[in-house]
Amino acid sequence: MKHHNYAKTPPMGWNSWDCYGATVKESEVKGNADYMAKHLKQHGWEYVVVDIQWSEPGAISSAYRPFVPLEMDEYSRLVPAENRFPSAKDGKGFKPLADYVHDLGLKFGIHIMRGIPRQAVHQNTKIKGTEVRASEIAHQNSICPWNTDMYGLDHTKKEAQMYYDSLFELYAEWEVDFIKVDDIADSKLYGAHLEEIKMIRKAIDRCGRPMVLSLSPGPAHLNDAAILEENANMWRMTDDFWDLWELLYGMFDRCYRWSKNVGPGYWPDADMLPLGHIGIRSVDGGASDRYTRFTQDEQITMMTLWTIFRSPLMFGGEMRDNDEFTLSLLTNEEVLKMHREGSDARQVYRYQDRVVWQSNGADQELYVALFNIADVAQTVSVDLDDIGIKSNQIKSLTDLWQKQTMPLVNQEIKSHLRPHACQLLKIELK
Amino acid sequence: MKHHNYAKTPPMGWNSWDCYGATVKESEVKGNADYMAKHLKQHGWEYVVVDIQWSEPGAISSAYRPFVPLEMDEYSRLVPAENRFPSAKDGKGFKPLADYVHDLGLKFGIHIMRGIPRQAVHQNTKIKGTEVRASEIAHQNSICPWNTDMYGLDHTKKEAQMYYDSLFELYAEWEVDFIKVDDIADSKLYGAHLEEIKMIRKAIDRCGRPMVLSLSPGPAHLNDAAILEENANMWRMTDDFWDLWELLYGMFDRCYRWSKNVGPGYWPDADMLPLGHIGIRSVDGGASDRYTRFTQDEQITMMTLWTIFRSPLMFGGEMRDNDEFTLSLLTNEEVLKMHREGSDARQVYRYQDRVVWQSNGADQELYVALFNIADVAQTVSVDLDDIGIKSNQIKSLTDLWQKQTMPLVNQEIKSHLRPHACQLLKIELK
Amino acid sequence: MKHHNYAKTPPMGWNSWDCYGATVKESEVKGNADYMAKHLKQHGWEYVVVDIQWSEPGAISSAYRPFVPLEMDEYSRLVPAENRFPSAKDGKGFKPLADYVHDLGLKFGIHIMRGIPRQAVHQNTKIKGTEVRASEIAHQNSICPWNTDMYGLDHTKKEAQMYYDSLFELYAEWEVDFIKVDDIADSKLYGAHLEEIKMIRKAIDRCGRPMVLSLSPGPAHLNDAAILEENANMWRMTDDFWDLWELLYGMFDRCYRWSKNVGPGYWPDADMLPLGHIGIRSVDGGASDRYTRFTQDEQITMMTLWTIFRSPLMFGGEMRDNDEFTLSLLTNEEVLKMHREGSDARQVYRYQDRVVWQSNGADQELYVALFNIADVAQTVSVDLDDIGIKSNQIKSLTDLWQKQTMPLVNQEIKSHLRPHACQLLKIELK
Amino acid sequence: MKHHNYAKTPPMGWNSWDCYGATVKESEVKGNADYMAKHLKQHGWEYVVVDIQWSEPGAISSAYRPFVPLEMDEYSRLVPAENRFPSAKDGKGFKPLADYVHDLGLKFGIHIMRGIPRQAVHQNTKIKGTEVRASEIAHQNSICPWNTDMYGLDHTKKEAQMYYDSLFELYAEWEVDFIKVDDIADSKLYGAHLEEIKMIRKAIDRCGRPMVLSLSPGPAHLNDAAILEENANMWRMTDDFWDLWELLYGMFDRCYRWSKNVGPGYWPDADMLPLGHIGIRSVDGGASDRYTRFTQDEQITMMTLWTIFRSPLMFGGEMRDNDEFTLSLLTNEEVLKMHREGSDARQVYRYQDRVVWQSNGADQELYVALFNIADVAQTVSVDLDDIGIKSNQIKSLTDLWQKQTMPLVNQEIKSHLRPHACQLLKIELK
Repeated sequence: MKHHNYAKTPPMGWNSWDCYGATVKESEVKGNADYMAKHLKQHGWEYVVVDIQWSEPGAISSAYRPFVPLEMDEYSRLVPAENRFPSAKDGKGFKPLADYVHDLGLKFGIHIMRGIPRQAVHQNTKIKGTEVRASEIAHQNSICPWNTDMYGLDHTKKEAQMYYDSLFELYAEWEVDFIKVDDIADSKLYGAHLEEIKMIRKAIDRCGRPMVLSLSPGPAHLNDAAILEENANMWRMTDDFWDLWELLYGMFDRCYRWSKNVGPGYWPDADMLPLGHIGIRSVDGGASDRYTRFTQDEQITMMTLWTIFRSPLMFGGEMRDNDEFTLSLLTNEEVLKMHREGSDARQVYRYQDRVVWQSNGADQELYVALFNIADVAQTVSVDLDDIGIKSNQIKSLTDLWQKQTMPLVNQEIKSHLRPHACQLLKIELK
Repeated sequence: MKHHNYAKTPPMGWNSWDCYGATVKESEVKGNADYMAKHLKQHGWEYVVVDIQWSEPGAISSAYRPFVPLEMDEYSRLVPAENRFPSAKDGKGFKPLADYVHDLGLKFGIHIMRGIPRQAVHQNTKIKGTEVRASEIAHQNSICPWNTDMYGLDHTKKEAQMYYDSLFELYAEWEVDFIKVDDIADSKLYGAHLEEIKMIRKAIDRCGRPMVLSLSPGPAHLNDAAILEENANMWRMTDDFWDLWELLYGMFDRCYRWSKNVGPGYWPDADMLPLGHIGIRSVDGGASDRYTRFTQDEQITMMTLWTIFRSPLMFGGEMRDNDEFTLSLLTNEEVLKMHREGSDARQVYRYQDRVVWQSNGADQELYVALFNIADVAQTVSVDLDDIGIKSNQIKSLTDLWQKQTMPLVNQEIKSHLRPHACQLLKIELK
Repeated sequence: MKHHNYAKTPPMGWNSWDCYGATVKESEVKGNADYMAKHLKQHGWEYVVVDIQWSEPGAISSAYRPFVPLEMDEYSRLVPAENRFPSAKDGKGFKPLADYVHDLGLKFGIHIMRGIPRQAVHQNTKIKGTEVRASEIAHQNSICPWNTDMYGLDHTKKEAQMYYDSLFELYAEWEVDFIKVDDIADSKLYGAHLEEIKMIRKAIDRCGRPMVLSLSPGPAHLNDAAILEENANMWRMTDDFWDLWELLYGMFDRCYRWSKNVGPGYWPDADMLPLGHIGIRSVDGGASDRYTRFTQDEQITMMTLWTIFRSPLMFGGEMRDNDEFTLSLLTNEEVLKMHREGSDARQVYRYQDRVVWQSNGADQELYVALFNIADVAQTVSVDLDDIGIKSNQIKSLTDLWQKQTMPLVNQEIKSHLRPHACQLLKIELK
Repeated sequence: MKHHNYAKTPPMGWNSWDCYGATVKESEVKGNADYMAKHLKQHGWEYVVVDIQWSEPGAISSAYRPFVPLEMDEYSRLVPAENRFPSAKDGKGFKPLADYVHDLGLKFGIHIMRGIPRQAVHQNTKIKGTEVRASEIAHQNSICPWNTDMYGLDHTKKEAQMYYDSLFELYAEWEVDFIKVDDIADSKLYGAHLEEIKMIRKAIDRCGRPMVLSLSPGPAHLNDAAILEENANMWRMTDDFWDLWELLYGMFDRCYRWSKNVGPGYWPDADMLPLGHIGIRSVDGGASDRYTRFTQDEQITMMTLWTIFRSPLMFGGEMRDNDEFTLSLLTNEEVLKMHREGSDARQVYRYQDRVVWQSNGADQELYVALFNIADVAQTVSVDLDDIGIKSNQIKSLTDLWQKQTMPLVNQEIKSHLRPHACQLLKIELK
C-alpha cells in the first residue's frame, strides 16, 4: 500500500506530551527542534510533534479543562491558539512553525482528535465545500471518554468524509508531515473506530501530501490488525506508557503478540519514551515534574526492546535538559542501525522472566537480546541452535550498549544479569 | 420510606409516548385528560404524563433531532416549547396545564432526562442559587447513548445537587405530581446511574411536594433492586415495550424474577400498554400509525400479567380513539381491584409454556391466572394444593374477563386455552 | 412455601470446614456436638454439620485429592468413609452419628456436591428404582471447577430426578436435618445450576423429612433470587469467607443489596464465622492452623452485621478451644434475640465508610448499629428522623455488646468508633 | 521455525468428519485413499486423515456417546478400535493403515483430543517412561465442553510433557504424517489451551518424524496468532464449517482479518470443504445424509476464497461418490497453482457485499477474484490502480473457472455476477 512508503523505517522523533501535557508553546517546540537538529538529526531522528489541544488557549497541564472554547476557523476546523503559537496569527496556522522545523532539516507533526469540535456542532458552523452544517455530520452518540472537545463523525454521510478532506487540505497547506489521531485506535466505550480510520486514510490520500498516520490510544486489538495495517503507519499497542516498571514488564508480552505484524511501512507502537526530564506540566503517569523514574538498567531494557522490535521511537522528555546518559541512549549508532535495518524480529523464547529476542541484520549480522525481567539477578542464556547458527559461523560478538567485543562462544550465549537488565549483542557471521 | 407513601398502589395513567413520540401538543394532552376524567377516573386512572422532549419546538416524531436548540430558562432549566404548549407563555411553564389536569380531578406528570442540557454547558449558563456555571457541574464524559440533549451531572460537586434541587423547585411550582426520569435506570454505555438516582431522590424530598418517581429505561438490574426501592417508586424491568408477542412472552420471566421485590410503594414496571391507536407520530416498535398489533387474546394476557403482578399501568394509545374492547380492558372493576389490593403475587409454576400465577385478595378471595404462552392451544391446570387451598373451602369461582361464574372444582383448576390466551379466575373462599 | 417453615429463624450451628477442611472425623464431630449441647444449645444453636468429602478415606486437608476413589453404595450413592466415621460400618451410614447428635437435643447436617460421582459414571453403576445406569443420567459436560468428585445431572432425564430422590430417601433414613449442597449456587464456569436446585427441592419434598436446604458456594446472583427463595432456605452471598478484613468490608455491600430479600424462611447467607481456633487441617483463606486473625473489634463488627442482617450463623472454629471472648460472642442473649426476632433490617445510610443499619424488634424495641469500616477512627451518627422515631419516644438506650445503659439522646445518636469497630444499640420505646 | 518446513504450501487432503462423523472404518479410509491416488494425487492432494474417536468401538454418528470405554494401551494411550480398524490387531495400531496409504504415494493423518483419557485417570494407569500414574498429570478441572473422552494435562508437571512425548513416539512408530489436535485452539469454557499447544509442539519436535500440526476447533483468536504460528502449521479460523451460506458469508471477514498472518509454513484454516456426498453418518451442520446444499455458484465462491487466501484444503465428502462437477472443483490446475504459489493475498476492498481479492503469482501473473456475496445480482468491479497495474502491462486475461480468455480492459475490471457468485481471473503481465 502506497502509504507504507511514507514510513519505510520506524518513525523517530520528539513529542510534547510527556513533558508538557496539553500545554506546549511555540518556543518550547522550537527549542526542542533546535536540539534535535544539533544532536539527533544525524542519527535519524526527524519528527517534531505538537501533541494534544494546541487549540486550547487556557490549557494548563495534562488534565483537560472540560467544555472550554477552542480556537476554530469558519469551517469548523481547529486552529492553533495564538497565545501559545504566536506565529499562527493572521490565519497562518501551523505553516510558520512547520517552516521553522523544515528549515532545520526536520519534519513537523501534529496531534488531532477524531471527529469535529462539539462547539462547531452546537454553534452549527459551516463545513467547507458542502451545503451542510456541523450538526448534520456529527455522530450523535459518539464521544471520547476522556476529553470533551469533539464528537465523532457519521461515516454514512458523504459530507463527513468531506470534512476530513477539508482538514487534511488545511494540514497540507500547513505542510504537516506527521499526524497523530487520538481517540480512535481504542475506546473503552466503543472499541476501535474503524470507519473513521478509513475516512482519515482517504482524506490523507486525497490531500496530495505524504503524511505519516499514527493512531492512538491503545491498546489496539490484534483482531483489527489488518484494518490498521491497510490504513495507518503506526498504532499504539498499549494505553499511555509511563516510567513505571510494571508497564515496561507488560510490554514484553504485547511486543511478542504483535511481532508477526511489523512493517515495513506499518509499525505497532510501544508508545513514547518517558526518558529524561518529563512531567514538567503534566500530572499523568502518577507523578509530576521529574527526571524519569526508570533506572539506567530499565532505560536500556526499554531502548533494547523498542529497537529490536522496531517500535517507532518518540522521545517524550524536554530534550534540552538531557543528561549525557540519556543522550547516549538516543545516539548509539549500532543500536539504531538494528532498529532501522533489522528484520523478522522475534521472541526466541520466554521462560518465566527470562526473555530472549533475535533480529536479523541487513549485512550478515544477527542481533540477540537477553532480558532479565525478574526482580532478582539471574542468568539468561540461549542455545545457538535456537537462533539458527553454529558456533563456527561466528566471526565476532559485540555488546552494543557496553560497546565492547565479547569472547566467542560454543554452544550457547549467556549472561548474568541484574534485575530488569539486559544485554544486546551483535553477532557478525563469517 | 416516606416516598413509598406517594404511590401506595401501582400508579395508573396515560403517557404520550406510544402515540405521539416526542411531539405531543397541549391540545392532545388536554383531550386525553378530558377522556380520562370522563371514562377512566372512576376506575382509578389518574396520571396524565407528557413524555420526552417537551422543550423541543421542532420535534417531529419519536426520532430525536440531534443537537437542536431547546427552550431553556436563565438557570439552565428546560421549559416547555411554547409553540407546542401555548399556555406556557410568559414563563408560566407547565403550571397552567397542570392546573387544567388538576381541575379535572387528575394528576399531572412530566418526563425528564437525567443531567443538564448540553446547550447550557456549552453556553455555560447559570445554576440557580450557586456561583458556578453549567460546565462546572456536568460530568464531562457522561452522555445518553440515544439522545443528544443532556450531559450527566458530577455527583461529587455539591452544586450538581443544587441544580437538581432547582429543577424540582421549579416542578413543584408547576405542581407536578409524577416525574419520569430517563437515561438513568440502565444505559448500554454505563449501566445504571445510581448516584444521580440518589441526587434526584434528595431533590424531590427537598422540594416539599410529593411526586411519584419513575425511572427509565430498562432493563433495570435486580442487583440494584435495593437502591431502586429506596429511592424511587417505579422502574422499568424492560427496554421499551411494544405490541410484539416476543416482548410480551419475555415479560413472563421478567415479572417472575422481580416478583419478590414488589411494593407497596415501589413497583417494578412492565412499561406502557401499547393498546388502541398508537404510533400516530412515532416510528418506534417497528411500525407506524396503527391500531395495536396485539390480538384480543394477547391484550387480555398482557392486562392479566400486568394487573396480577401489580405493574404500574400507563396507557400508551390516543384514548379518544379507543374502541369498546380497548375501553373494556381498562374498566374491568374486578380486575382493577385485584391490581389495587392484591398481595404476594407469585408465579405458582412454569412448565415450558404453561404458566400459572396467583395473588391474594384483600377480602378472603384468591386470584389465579392460567396462561398459555405457547403458539399452539393447550390445557393449563393447577392443583389446589399448589395454591394453598382445599376444594371444600371454595365458595365461588369467577372468570373475571368473561364475567361469568364457573362450576366448582375438586382437585385442580384447568382450562383449555387458545395460543397466547389466558384465563383469570377469582376464587372466593368460605 | 412449605419449606420456609423448616427455618423460620436463621439457622445457627457449627460446621467442620473452617477448622478441619475435608477431613473431619467422627470423634471431632461428637466433641463439638457435646460442646454445643453444654454451652450453646440454650442460646439457640442447634445444627452440627459435617462438611465436604466425608466419603474420602484419605482426605488430608482442605485441598482435595483429585480423582481418588470414594466410598459408595451399590446405587451410586456416596456413604461415609468408615475409617473416619467408624459408626457408619455395616452400611449404617450417618444414622448412628445423627442419633448421637439428636440425643443431645441437637440437629444433624451434612454437605453434598450436586450431581453423581464420576466414579459411578465411569463404572456405570446402578441407579436405585430405575433401569438406567449412572452414565445415562450424568450431564456429560458439567463439572465442578474446583473438585473432581462429581458430574452434574441431566435434568431432562426423569431418572436424574429419581437419583436425587434416592439420595434424599437415604438421608431421611439417616435422619439428616440439614443439607448443604455445594457447586450449585454459583460456578465460575456455568453460573448457577438452577435446574439441579429445583430437582433437589423436589427430592426433599418427596423424602418426607423436613430438611433445611443450604446452597453454596457464592456469590449467588440477585437475578436468581426468586428461584433461590422458592427452592431453598439459605444461599451464599459470597465466595468462601475467611478472617480477612477486606472480605468483611465487602460484606457490607452484599448485605445491603440482599436486604430486601430476607426471610422468614429463606436467608441470604454471609457464610461461616471464622472465629476461634481455625485452619487446623485446612490450607484455605491464606493461612493454616491459627486463632482467627480478626481483631476483637472486627469480630464484634462481624457478629453485629450477621445478626442484624439475619444471616445464618454457622460457627467455623473448633469449639472446644474457644476462649471466653469467643464464647461471649455466641451467647449474648440480647444480640441473639435481635437475630431471632428482628424484621425489616435495612441499611439506613452509607456515607463513604460510615454505615448505619436498623432492625425492628418484636417488642416495641428498635436496634441500631453504627459501623466505622474505615481504617481510621471516626464518629458515626444517625438522625432519629432517619430511623423513624422521636427523642421523646425513647425509654432506654442500651449498648448490647458493652451491656451498659447509655444516656438518652435528642436529635441524633452518635458514637466515636475505633477503626473497624461498631456499636450496637437497643432502643426501647415508650 | 523448523516445523514450517513440514507444510511449505497449504496442506491438501481428505478428512472423514464431514461424511462419517466419529465412525469411519478402515475400508472407507482405504477406499477414499484409493480414489485420491487415482484422481487427485497428481493435483497435489496428499493427506488422508482419520478424524475423531477412532478408539471408540461403538461410535454411531457425529454425536459422541458419553462416558464409553475406549481402546487403550497399557500406557494410557488410545489405540484404534479393532472392530473398526481390523489391521490394528495385535497391537499394530495405525501402522498397517499408514503403510497402505504410503504405498499409494500419499500421507496419513489422525485426529486426537488434547489431554489424557478420563478412563486412564479413573483407572489410574501407567505413563510410559515415568513413575507417575495418569491421575497425577491430569489437569483436574480441564474438560472438553462437547466430548467426555479426555482430561487436559497439567503443564506444570514434567511427566505431562512425557506423556505427550510418549504419544508422539507411538504416532511416529505408526508413521503418522499429519496430526489434528482438537479441543485446543478454542474452548467456550477456557479459551485456547496455549500451554498444551506448546507441549505438543515439543513432543513432535522430539519424536523425530516431521508431522504437520493442525489445531481445532475455531475460532482461534488473532491475539494468539504469534503463539499459533510458532507452534503449529494450521489452525481453524472458525467453528465447524458446513454447507450453509451464512457460514460462507462470514468467512470473508475471517479471511480478511487473518490475511496478514498467512504462511509459508503456517496456515489459518477455513476448515473442511463440505462438498459432494456428506453427512452419511453425521448429524451435524443441521442436516444428515445429502449432497452438499451449496449451489454450484456457492461452491465456486468457496473454492475461490479458500484458494486465493491459501487456506488448507481438506475435502469432507465421500470422494467415491463425487460427480463430475465436484471433481472439477478439485482438479482445476490453474486454480491450484494459485493456491500453491500465490503470495501476499489481500482483500483489495469490500464495499457492502462486493468483495475483491488479489494474489500475486510466482511467474509475473496476478490473480483477481470478484465476489458478489449479496442476495441479488450486481456488478463488481475493481480499478487497475487498486491492484497496482496499468492496462498497458496486461498481456492476457483469463477466467480460471470458465477456462476462457477474456477481452483486455482499460481502467477497470468488472463483472456482472449472480447472487453468491464470483469470477476468478488470471492476469498475465508483459
